[in-house]
Amino acid sequence: MNAVRVGIVGLGRLGRRHAENLAWRVPGARLVAACSPVQEERDWAKAHFPETAIHTDYESFLNDASVDAVWLVTPTSLHATQIIAALRAGKHVFCEKPLSLDLAECDVVIEAHARHAHLHVMIGFVRRFDASYRDAFESVARGAIGRPFMVRSQTCDKNDPDGFFVRFAPTSGGLFLDCSVHDVDLARWLLGNPRAKRVFASGTIAIHEGLRECGDIDNGVGVVEFDDGRLTVLYASRTMAHGHDTQTEVIGTAGALSVGRNPRLNRVEIADEHGMRNACTPTFFERFEDAFLREAQAFVASVAGGTPTGLTLDDAREATRIGIALREAYASGRPVDL
Amino acid sequence: MNAVRVGIVGLGRLGRRHAENLAWRVPGARLVAACSPVQEERDWAKAHFPETAIHTDYESFLNDASVDAVWLVTPTSLHATQIIAALRAGKHVFCEKPLSLDLAECDVVIEAHARHAHLHVMIGFVRRFDASYRDAFESVARGAIGRPFMVRSQTCDKNDPDGFFVRFAPTSGGLFLDCSVHDVDLARWLLGNPRAKRVFASGTIAIHEGLRECGDIDNGVGVVEFDDGRLTVLYASRTMAHGHDTQTEVIGTAGALSVGRNPRLNRVEIADEHGMRNACTPTFFERFEDAFLREAQAFVASVAGGTPTGLTLDDAREATRIGIALREAYASGRPVDL
Amino acid sequence: MNAVRVGIVGLGRLGRRHAENLAWRVPGARLVAACSPVQEERDWAKAHFPETAIHTDYESFLNDASVDAVWLVTPTSLHATQIIAALRAGKHVFCEKPLSLDLAECDVVIEAHARHAHLHVMIGFVRRFDASYRDAFESVARGAIGRPFMVRSQTCDKNDPDGFFVRFAPTSGGLFLDCSVHDVDLARWLLGNPRAKRVFASGTIAIHEGLRECGDIDNGVGVVEFDDGRLTVLYASRTMAHGHDTQTEVIGTAGALSVGRNPRLNRVEIADEHGMRNACTPTFFERFEDAFLREAQAFVASVAGGTPTGLTLDDAREATRIGIALREAYASGRPVDL
Amino acid sequence: MNAVRVGIVGLGRLGRRHAENLAWRVPGARLVAACSPVQEERDWAKAHFPETAIHTDYESFLNDASVDAVWLVTPTSLHATQIIAALRAGKHVFCEKPLSLDLAECDVVIEAHARHAHLHVMIGFVRRFDASYRDAFESVARGAIGRPFMVRSQTCDKNDPDGFFVRFAPTSGGLFLDCSVHDVDLARWLLGNPRAKRVFASGTIAIHEGLRECGDIDNGVGVVEFDDGRLTVLYASRTMAHGHDTQTEVIGTAGALSVGRNPRLNRVEIADEHGMRNACTPTFFERFEDAFLREAQAFVASVAGGTPTGLTLDDAREATRIGIALREAYASGRPVDL
Repeated sequence: MNAVRVGIVGLGRLGRRHAENLAWRVPGARLVAACSPVQEERDWAKAHFPETAIHTDYESFLNDASVDAVWLVTPTSLHATQIIAALRAGKHVFCEKPLSLDLAECDVVIEAHARHAHLHVMIGFVRRFDASYRDAFESVARGAIGRPFMVRSQTCDKNDPDGFFVRFAPTSGGLFLDCSVHDVDLARWLLGNPRAKRVFASGTIAIHEGLRECGDIDNGVGVVEFDDGRLTVLYASRTMAHGHDTQTEVIGTAGALSVGRNPRLNRVEIADEHGMRNACTPTFFERFEDAFLREAQAFVASVAGGTPTGLTLDDAREATRIGIALREAYASGRPVDL
Repeated sequence: MNAVRVGIVGLGRLGRRHAENLAWRVPGARLVAACSPVQEERDWAKAHFPETAIHTDYESFLNDASVDAVWLVTPTSLHATQIIAALRAGKHVFCEKPLSLDLAECDVVIEAHARHAHLHVMIGFVRRFDASYRDAFESVARGAIGRPFMVRSQTCDKNDPDGFFVRFAPTSGGLFLDCSVHDVDLARWLLGNPRAKRVFASGTIAIHEGLRECGDIDNGVGVVEFDDGRLTVLYASRTMAHGHDTQTEVIGTAGALSVGRNPRLNRVEIADEHGMRNACTPTFFERFEDAFLREAQAFVASVAGGTPTGLTLDDAREATRIGIALREAYASGRPVDL
Repeated sequence: MNAVRVGIVGLGRLGRRHAENLAWRVPGARLVAACSPVQEERDWAKAHFPETAIHTDYESFLNDASVDAVWLVTPTSLHATQIIAALRAGKHVFCEKPLSLDLAECDVVIEAHARHAHLHVMIGFVRRFDASYRDAFESVARGAIGRPFMVRSQTCDKNDPDGFFVRFAPTSGGLFLDCSVHDVDLARWLLGNPRAKRVFASGTIAIHEGLRECGDIDNGVGVVEFDDGRLTVLYASRTMAHGHDTQTEVIGTAGALSVGRNPRLNRVEIADEHGMRNACTPTFFERFEDAFLREAQAFVASVAGGTPTGLTLDDAREATRIGIALREAYASGRPVDL
Repeated sequence: MNAVRVGIVGLGRLGRRHAENLAWRVPGARLVAACSPVQEERDWAKAHFPETAIHTDYESFLNDASVDAVWLVTPTSLHATQIIAALRAGKHVFCEKPLSLDLAECDVVIEAHARHAHLHVMIGFVRRFDASYRDAFESVARGAIGRPFMVRSQTCDKNDPDGFFVRFAPTSGGLFLDCSVHDVDLARWLLGNPRAKRVFASGTIAIHEGLRECGDIDNGVGVVEFDDGRLTVLYASRTMAHGHDTQTEVIGTAGALSVGRNPRLNRVEIADEHGMRNACTPTFFERFEDAFLREAQAFVASVAGGTPTGLTLDDAREATRIGIALREAYASGRPVDL
């Protein structure tokens, strides 16, 4: 079996992590090309992967015949265009989440993929590849908690006093589209792909008043009603004091399953004048470090002819659709029917 | 200082617990009378408290001049009438929650109390007297988590396959008024008595189809928006597999505090073929056993001239008001403004 | 059934706790007398229990015919003499642990009790009455972990920078006799009363150099070999930073059971810049508050004709015997055969 | 920088894990050769690493000039001879623990290494490379718990009803040399390389009577006294019901630090009729999967000219020396001076 030759696009913080995984830790993958318009990012790539072709321009990168699969770690606003161009160039595509903040754009990508159905395209909902979420999914699937009817899920980031995300807010899609889409995707996955019927949302600015200008919030809650009475309750926050705290609970008729109830950094506990305690994962990087690797392994394996990852463009579209509805529900103060 | 002479009304399961506390464990209290229309309950009282006067009829009981304070553990539908009658008879009143399922009735009681302002009246929101909730409240109050802006709270009961509560449903006021009022009261207390502005609710029947007839559900979620951006997310369930699971989390700008994240029965952990585990509190009795005692001690102490408990009839009215709004929001599928 | 009329001797910190329990919280008990040579302690008793007779002198106290049971919370060096005198006066006796630091003295008490076998005598190994330890005992007894063959148990106190216990050391019997006897008693109870064959001990002074003078240590470990291969590993410390940390683990052929693995103060958890944490019980008072009450209830109930507590003078003697052997093993650096 | 070319010897269960890591996940390493006398193992290597040279015989393997470093995952009895031969052939050596069960043999290896001091040799005490142990070490080193004076550490395996290790017992060195050497090495590392002065040990056969024949046990405890009053208490077991349970606690004058108090498999918790629980790591493979990888990365990096791992042959010798003393102490029932 030939190696899957991968070209990475975008070498910011997360892009570098992907690049390192693809270069060194994904059996069956070879990192053959890297592309970035940023000089400093290209320098980094050159230094770390001497045998990798470096491109400044996405178009010339796509002309590189040695690339089998494109790995997009670029701004969301570029995703749709870049995916479609890659498909036209005959490349498989991995793209960081979200697919797009715009539903029509999602549809265009889906249509493009339909015309290149032999190519693999996956949006990186990384949590599906986390060992603990995987275990939870399999436990639910084999009936360990009876019929699952409710998911409670949160994506809560450690407060950044510098408020980087405040500057990022105007293009992020807002709290629900930036953070809660992860939880929406998990909920759909864990509940067996139910159909969303209605959403409601609420929220507040706890710390970052700068968000008010663009209508965003730093703490938000949402309720998603699916068919057959299945329910999801979401929480997203930018203001945690203790670290990145992603948790999910699946409640069924015969039990409940939670993932990440204590966002412990590792297996260390400290007993001192502060009590009995453990450190917490500072960011999603530490929390999902292994999941990013498994995600890459899974996608490369599926491209190489292995098991499909089960994650489709429709899943990505649905996350965006529900995220948009949550934002709208928050803005209007009314439930939004889907 | 003279003992507070207490007469208890209603000797069902919870009434007996109150009676035992008042008879044996509340310094400064004396259980001098008991009242029940049920023969078996009176027999129990006679056997356990030989020196206590036994009444069949509430009116004759109120004529008992030796009773300083009336302890009502009776059906909710009787609360308002019995409280007012007790006030007229010059008695202090402790009454199990909720005050009433009807807001107008709450107001009548509040007015009656205004005419007897020297008498103490308290509705038993028992969780405020739990040592852990008390600790959480004090930590929040002294600023341990910065400004608290959000509460997530749940009241989840172990599933009763016999579905006792299904038969009880038509008179319980429904899931939100029966269970979530506890969480509503906790949220208001922990957030510093904010004013509720709007509520939304959703829910489902996971197991007990018999509830459908009376419009009730066995799992429900609610969002309460308070002023100044303070928020509360509620969950109530009748269908837990593992036990009674009451949890509350207060989230602030500098930290978060939770109570009861693991509904552990005690300090025992077991490592065996099922993994590492602990038993859970089967019902609210085991979870709040100590709190019922402290509640009684606190009310008796306040009647005897000590510190007020801080729990007012207005608090009880507000819990009912928000509970009714949640029920209405669930029924209509629309947010309800308050 | 008549109330058991109790007279308490010794009203220091722990004595006052016992007195309050006996006065207000033990059904079937009446606190009728108190005895202390210390003026301040008698004043406290007078103020708190106005109807209780106050004695300065133990002999005159024993002449008080209204006392059915004597409750000794006095220095260890007085235990044996006071118990024997109380038995001669026809009183039941509860006595704080340990029975005595001297084995011969233990035997004299046992012989005295044999001559007054109708009287109840119990040494207060309070942990046997803790709800969690009781649950563990019952789980082990019904076979939940198969055949129990090993106990690991620790008694670790929060460091007292003032080093009160250093001044107390010359009369405490040393770390093993003061602290580990609790663990020894638990181990024997949980393992089904095995016979001790050999002990070994080691230890160090981590902080309190003042202990060196009297041959004591502030951290010690011990191994007790019982018959049939049953084993116990002990740890005792005076220097914990986080609080009073008493833990016990019972290991069996089909599972293991632990009590108190996290010495949590209550059900509150805090998430803040220190991580995820809980406060710890500061002293044994907070940890065993309920157990002291249950202990009193159990002894009073047994005196009143109820179920025996199962705790005998032989148990107390065995704890002392093993404690002395541990001290000797530590001093000699050699195992001590029993 | 050139890649380190590695040849692996021994492809049993653990050898295969090492081989996969070296082939796919260790930056800077290339798996160029594999050696095993077992046909099935060579077949596995051929199928998984098509470009790797396969050897049946260790001598011919050592003649392979393309091998820079030898990776020994062979029976303990071969370690010393194979290490020395590899050194003579000018190869760096990684060798699974323990170095040897015989102290004289350890010394011979150390002497051989002295004659080839430019070559790297490391015995795989894998736990030093576990992220949690590493965190604990660094916390202790920077004074987070004051002066560390005590370590409690256990290596407890899940019971294997088939009793594989019973058949393995005659050549394993016994419980202390097979399991506790890990804890001994951790204790020395965490306490700052103290000098052992005396050990004591005890133990029992809880389940596997077949061990009696060769003088081994399935549950053992040990005490190691180091200089300056530093202490270590060990526990090793073959009979856990819940899984592989390796835990270590470091106690200092200003706090205590534990690693692995709950041997949780992952971040999933289940609430069902068994209570609140988590699955446990079934074997050391799952527990130390990442550590085996980091260990390989660290050794390869040090060979390639990076930071030394800090793990010396003297450390390995000391673990064996203390392990032998523990075994002797158990056999004699007496403390053994070192």
